[in-house]
Amino acid sequence: MSATPYQQLEQEWRRLHAFRGALALLRWDAAVMMPKGSADIRGEQLAALETEHHTLLTAPRVSRLLDRAQANAQGLDEWQVANLREMRRQRDHAIATPVSLVSRLARATARAEVKWVEARRNNDFALFAPHLEEVLHLVRDKAQLLGQALDLAPYDALTDEFSPGVTMTDIDAMFKSLSRRLPGLIREAMALQEKHPALPIVGKFPVGKQRQLVLELMKAVGFRFEGGRVDESEHPFTEGVPGDIRITTRYDADDLFSGVLGALHETGHAMYDLGLPREWRDQPVGRDRGMAIEESQSLLIEMIVCRSRPFVRYLLPLLVKHFGVEGPEWEPENVYAHLTRVRRGLIRVDADELTYPLHIQLRYELEKQLLSGALAVRDLPDAWAEFMGARFNVRPATHQEGCLQDIHWAVGSFGYFPSYALGAAIAAQLHEKLRGDVMGLDEQIARGEFGGLFGWLREHVHGLGSKVSTQELLKLATGKPLNAAASLRYLEGKYLEDPTSRSAAA
Amino acid sequence: MSATPYQQLEQEWRRLHAFRGALALLRWDAAVMMPKGSADIRGEQLAALETEHHTLLTAPRVSRLLDRAQANAQGLDEWQVANLREMRRQRDHAIATPVSLVSRLARATARAEVKWVEARRNNDFALFAPHLEEVLHLVRDKAQLLGQALDLAPYDALTDEFSPGVTMTDIDAMFKSLSRRLPGLIREAMALQEKHPALPIVGKFPVGKQRQLVLELMKAVGFRFEGGRVDESEHPFTEGVPGDIRITTRYDADDLFSGVLGALHETGHAMYDLGLPREWRDQPVGRDRGMAIEESQSLLIEMIVCRSRPFVRYLLPLLVKHFGVEGPEWEPENVYAHLTRVRRGLIRVDADELTYPLHIQLRYELEKQLLSGALAVRDLPDAWAEFMGARFNVRPATHQEGCLQDIHWAVGSFGYFPSYALGAAIAAQLHEKLRGDVMGLDEQIARGEFGGLFGWLREHVHGLGSKVSTQELLKLATGKPLNAAASLRYLEGKYLEDPTSRSAAA
Repeated sequence: MSATPYQQLEQEWRRLHAFRGALALLRWDAAVMMPKGSADIRGEQLAALETEHHTLLTAPRVSRLLDRAQANAQGLDEWQVANLREMRRQRDHAIATPVSLVSRLARATARAEVKWVEARRNNDFALFAPHLEEVLHLVRDKAQLLGQALDLAPYDALTDEFSPGVTMTDIDAMFKSLSRRLPGLIREAMALQEKHPALPIVGKFPVGKQRQLVLELMKAVGFRFEGGRVDESEHPFTEGVPGDIRITTRYDADDLFSGVLGALHETGHAMYDLGLPREWRDQPVGRDRGMAIEESQSLLIEMIVCRSRPFVRYLLPLLVKHFGVEGPEWEPENVYAHLTRVRRGLIRVDADELTYPLHIQLRYELEKQLLSGALAVRDLPDAWAEFMGARFNVRPATHQEGCLQDIHWAVGSFGYFPSYALGAAIAAQLHEKLRGDVMGLDEQIARGEFGGLFGWLREHVHGLGSKVSTQELLKLATGKPLNAAASLRYLEGKYLEDPTSRSAAA
Repeated sequence: MSATPYQQLEQEWRRLHAFRGALALLRWDAAVMMPKGSADIRGEQLAALETEHHTLLTAPRVSRLLDRAQANAQGLDEWQVANLREMRRQRDHAIATPVSLVSRLARATARAEVKWVEARRNNDFALFAPHLEEVLHLVRDKAQLLGQALDLAPYDALTDEFSPGVTMTDIDAMFKSLSRRLPGLIREAMALQEKHPALPIVGKFPVGKQRQLVLELMKAVGFRFEGGRVDESEHPFTEGVPGDIRITTRYDADDLFSGVLGALHETGHAMYDLGLPREWRDQPVGRDRGMAIEESQSLLIEMIVCRSRPFVRYLLPLLVKHFGVEGPEWEPENVYAHLTRVRRGLIRVDADELTYPLHIQLRYELEKQLLSGALAVRDLPDAWAEFMGARFNVRPATHQEGCLQDIHWAVGSFGYFPSYALGAAIAAQLHEKLRGDVMGLDEQIARGEFGGLFGWLREHVHGLGSKVSTQELLKLATGKPLNAAASLRYLEGKYLEDPTSRSAAA
């Protein structure tokens, strides 16, 4: 019996999946293992494989098969229907942008990235501005074309690439709720913390021992090392395909928590990828549901689970074992206070849970204005400073701690930033529901048992892959559409609790 | 101005080169870094990229361009002409074997490899025999088709893939010279060694310190770490493309020399690859000239340069520095005797310079008979034992130390073995000439200076890439065609020297 159009498509995507896996390894190696002098060669390899992937995905044969499979969809089960929908989605995204625009964008962002590094080092916005202008111009064209093809507003078309099905309407609603409450919440939390200042935690934490601790924690969490690795790189990341998932972190002998929590954040991503439906591993429906859900998984682990009292109870004996820590600063309440400190800082990647969403809102508002033309590139530094002054009560003294701090726009990633804030809101929404469903969660975590947590996540999130949209996934898992209410409840509960009553309850 | 057919071909090969580089990284990672459970996924990635590489190489467009470039070759310089010839060579090899045969062979060898591992472990030749039969059958078909396409005898067509331009006539002539003299030479060398037995070298050599020593030696030799790495794997190998060359070795805390000399052997390969003509890096003419020349470079470094008195003089202070070695067994003459010991062993990979060619001759004779049908698979163990008895005066007690010791036939690599013996002969031939050309070579090596050695090799071997055939390269470099005379002179000089006079001369 010859293969049906749908079966032939699965075969095509198996090949595309193999290319994706190869590309992932090339990128991982570039960040972790590659000799310094080999960047040009690696660039050529990545370009060749990406071009081939694009060619295979947009081949006329694939279009014909998609149409024929669609016409014969009555025999497909619901996973296959979803898979076909996701195949078409990938193809539509790929075909909407002409190859000439893709390669112009690739060249422009390569140049802009180099200039961004230089401009940031020298605090020279004028050096970067014309390159951002060029990238912006091309991204605008792309958004226009994508929007037409997908029947979406231009900005929504960009967001759709990162977090399928999430629109400006969703994002605006979320920021509206958050910005009504967050500034006040930050003030109150900081006032509380000032009343009960934490003892500083200083010391030397040998990197070799941090590595051992991370391995022990990852094993406890459930990371399967026969299908993954942990290494080190300049910036922590997760790369690979399910079955070969590789995370990295970055150790600092002076700061125990940055490397360890970095690894746990990435382990959150990895556990999602490892929990995706195994039988759909090489198909679009078996992939993660985009960056908003990805970030929800890493933030749920790092921020909600690991920066919590139960986790501190589990962690402290391990810190004693590996580093021999002792003294009043290592009392559980002090460590917890250290892990949940709130500060109005200028730098997004150093931000805490309370201030982080405002950093994202700033970028979201400004990138929309840049794309629409309402904000000129030359006026970006002023607009940035104004937002920071109004919301944070601080203004960047330099561009490094202002609009030159992030790489995203230089590399053309407009529409990406909201994923971070969406992820935090989704994490809280999922967490609120799973706390109700999983009995004794805190006790389990305090014992270093994560099976209850991940069992729930696998059933309601990981195991669905891309079967449903981001919004449907949330409705199925929590009964509610995406909203910021759970996030605000979580943040108020965590950051407005009086430390005195806290101690007694611990 | 639009690109000429030749320029378009260069562009095609740039893409093929990028695929080759990606494939090299996937293989390296599989042997060095990959989680154990990811082998299936990696297999799919390798298959997808190899298939795509084959499809691109055998595309009708490439054939048309080759013909058009050939018809307009009058404007090309000699490097471009050679490049065009090598492009055609690669295409001819790829197109001669139908895709169906390639994939049947891939599946058969994958099965045979698994069975070979099991058969070897259990000393069970009968388990492996039917799989070898199947592989042999397919390789015979391939040799027939390749031979017809390339106008070569079937066996020569197989050899041509590994060592272009080397034929059975060359190999037969080499083994004829060698086998007339080697058995007697082995006897005499062993008699001499028995008269002056070496003190045993035992001790513990921490792997961490061995790693440091290897880094120091590789730097001294001239390996550029900004374009390469050294790691560890089950079997030492060299992988990658010029600009990102990665070698491995395997350390044994009980045996200092195995890991260090393994690394130096692979460094010989890497220095060849790093010395290939840079401006032709992504073109066929810029590649190494095949396995015979590759092996000549690794054996020249490991066997001729590093198992020598001058190198021992350079090495010993480093051993004192890294391991604090002392005692009479660490006297230079004793270390040299240790590094040049001759033994009639059953295992090829443990063999010394004198007995190694006979191990290869055995495999060469038997694989020709297997391919022609003169030897049946079931009679292989007896034929093996008979050859060993006649030439080595020892017979394997088990199949593990007999015909199951090598993986090559299981994975379909017929025609590969001669490269090892050819490499040894070529190494001696090149070495004889370069000793005459480079003044004070021994003194340089004793000082840890390798610039003179590699300067000569770069000029006469590495820098030529694939511009000329193996035979032409040797004529250009040494004035003589490939022959075993230099090898025999080298071996006689090295192994028949009276140790008493040696000591005085040292």
